Amino acid sequence: MRKLYHTSLSPFCRKIRIHMREKGLDFELMEEPVWESRESLYQLNPAGEVPVLVDENDIILSGSYAISEYLEEGYTEVGFLGKTLVERAEVRRLVTWFDMKFYHEVSQPILFEKFYRRFMRYGMPDSETIRLAKNNISAHLDCIAQLTENRRWLAGDFLSLADFAASAHLSSMDYLDDVPWDTAAPSVREWYALLKSRPSFRPLLCDRMRGLKPPLHYENPDF
Amino acid sequence: MRKLYHTSLSPFCRKIRIHMREKGLDFELMEEPVWESRESLYQLNPAGEVPVLVDENDIILSGSYAISEYLEEGYTEVGFLGKTLVERAEVRRLVTWFDMKFYHEVSQPILFEKFYRRFMRYGMPDSETIRLAKNNISAHLDCIAQLTENRRWLAGDFLSLADFAASAHLSSMDYLDDVPWDTAAPSVREWYALLKSRPSFRPLLCDRMRGLKPPLHYENPDF
Repeated sequence: MRKLYHTSLSPFCRKIRIHMREKGLDFELMEEPVWESRESLYQLNPAGEVPVLVDENDIILSGSYAISEYLEEGYTEVGFLGKTLVERAEVRRLVTWFDMKFYHEVSQPILFEKFYRRFMRYGMPDSETIRLAKNNISAHLDCIAQLTENRRWLAGDFLSLADFAASAHLSSMDYLDDVPWDTAAPSVREWYALLKSRPSFRPLLCDRMRGLKPPLHYENPDF
Repeated sequence: MRKLYHTSLSPFCRKIRIHMREKGLDFELMEEPVWESRESLYQLNPAGEVPVLVDENDIILSGSYAISEYLEEGYTEVGFLGKTLVERAEVRRLVTWFDMKFYHEVSQPILFEKFYRRFMRYGMPDSETIRLAKNNISAHLDCIAQLTENRRWLAGDFLSLADFAASAHLSSMDYLDDVPWDTAAPSVREWYALLKSRPSFRPLLCDRMRGLKPPLHYENPDF
């Protein structure tokens, strides 16, 4: 059985969890406390980071870029990168948007301040950093709205890795109640609701962290 | 003629410049002052970032992930991702190492403090941030040594995108004289010297920024 080493709120792990379920691939979830820097993790991935996928053929894949491209190249029955070169460039542009830009401006600071600090016993959250990141998320929701108002899915009329990346980041922030849904455009809520109602998304909505409850709307597809 | 919008010291742009030359693709370099946030750049790439490639068929590609995968899929005569799924996963793991880990721990803080601040007129460099990043670079050189001592190139016995990514980051740091070559393992210096001596690397070594001279060894393949 293939194994996915992950940390529940990591957007990169969530993206791969959705991607694998959409591909119809079974896997065992291995919760990895990355903040403990365990030797066993470094043996799998010298970067000491998750996600790490150990596939059935014992191939070890580290990092969401290597894993998602591997899933697309190795399991071709359904694809989530688009067919033409133009479609694929658009999907990957948007994946970069969320995994680099959204991550730096929103997910990374919020996850560090509100989540990792607790486990690393690394002082109190910095409220100014959180405030700035929460401002940034509103700007990003507006950018998503520009896409959802003109397209069925983020990269076009097909469900893609761009949707998985974006919703993975948003769902992590939503667990921490940091998505201002009340000011988000209706098309963004509708797009996210569609993703939430997919079976691939269900396991994420059932995640619970000890001592850290999500808001009531977190798992409700009709939020 | 295809056009590559770039900023000279951006490691992501440098990676694509090397990649395209190794592919034998001609292009015009368009210097883009990203710190000016020009409207024309946002029209090409809503993220306001480089690299952006406008290919001969007028396809616009934003971000080094989309561009490098596009180059591999669209121009297949020579490839730099490896042949098997295992090789390709290893190349992409290492690209993530440099474009995420090395970037956050070394390139991003050093480039911001020593380069972008000048152009953005954004205060004085923070010496503590620079000191930490310079400490990190030594640890990364040790990691590269573990690869170069056992492999011909970073990902195995073939030249790959991993070499382009790693040398792109190192060359940007080297322009600013922040690579402690005197303490680097011989195999790392030899690997980097091999890359420096390739025609694809030559244009990078000829780059000069106004008012910011590189050290004497910067363009010398026998450094």
